Amino acid sequence: MSPLAARDPNERDEEVQSTQAGEVGPVLAEIDHVGVAVRDLATALDSYREAYDVLVEQREVDPEDGVEEALLRVGGRWVRLMAPHRDDSPLVAWLDEHGEGLHHVGYRVADCAATLAHLRAQGHEALDPFPRPGLRGPVVARVRDRHGTLVELVEDVPSF
Amino acid sequence: MSPLAARDPNERDEEVQSTQAGEVGPVLAEIDHVGVAVRDLATALDSYREAYDVLVEQREVDPEDGVEEALLRVGGRWVRLMAPHRDDSPLVAWLDEHGEGLHHVGYRVADCAATLAHLRAQGHEALDPFPRPGLRGPVVARVRDRHGTLVELVEDVPSF
Repeated sequence: MSPLAARDPNERDEEVQSTQAGEVGPVLAEIDHVGVAVRDLATALDSYREAYDVLVEQREVDPEDGVEEALLRVGGRWVRLMAPHRDDSPLVAWLDEHGEGLHHVGYRVADCAATLAHLRAQGHEALDPFPRPGLRGPVVARVRDRHGTLVELVEDVPSF
Repeated sequence: MSPLAARDPNERDEEVQSTQAGEVGPVLAEIDHVGVAVRDLATALDSYREAYDVLVEQREVDPEDGVEEALLRVGGRWVRLMAPHRDDSPLVAWLDEHGEGLHHVGYRVADCAATLAHLRAQGHEALDPFPRPGLRGPVVARVRDRHGTLVELVEDVPSF
């Protein structure tokens, strides 16, 4: 257990910016999932089932982001298919710019708030100012790292 | 062990196209790594070390692809940083089109040749006609799936 694990997830960044990776062990515990953006979830699910024989473990609509999602199990990790759920979803613009394909990588972390603060101090762009409830963990937060990769921090969940 | 595991990796596709996922268990055993394309490997390594406190386990130049790579350990999986090693590397064109960021996802599979043949039969575009020696496994093969994701199949290696 990280000594920071009991911190309030909403505490101000300034209070945890001094966190150094060395104090809490590895910053990233595991790869949790890869996020894949697609135009149409049903079509992509058919394709993934046929090609990969994967199980759909969960489907959910995120009304805030206007995204429809499906979690596919790959061993002990996940592929998260994401499709726009409405025309004004930010994912529509993302797909127009990038086309279908890899969207983000999810890493498990012991303490989402502390890791978010650490990465902001390291120059990562926080897409969520604070951790928020997530599909894959009690809280999640997204950052864009200094080399263009969209990263989702997933507060550690028990192994499946 | 898959009943197909002893097949010659170079046998012709026609002989294994009838392979169904159900005969060999799950097509994808695990997420093995995420591949991240960057302009300059040394700069990206500094950034990853600072931000994520990750260990560099391996560095290698792939002269065929003109790519310089570093494997960073994240739990029991890997982040593979890739940078062009010469000006005419195909990765230069990729970076010009996409910018730095997620490049591919690597999945562990029991039998690279059989999985490659299965995915080709499913309409995936094979970027390697046959499995070839890989940095992350005895043999690897790359495909682009029907939804734009570049996938590297990594024949299963012992867990670390």
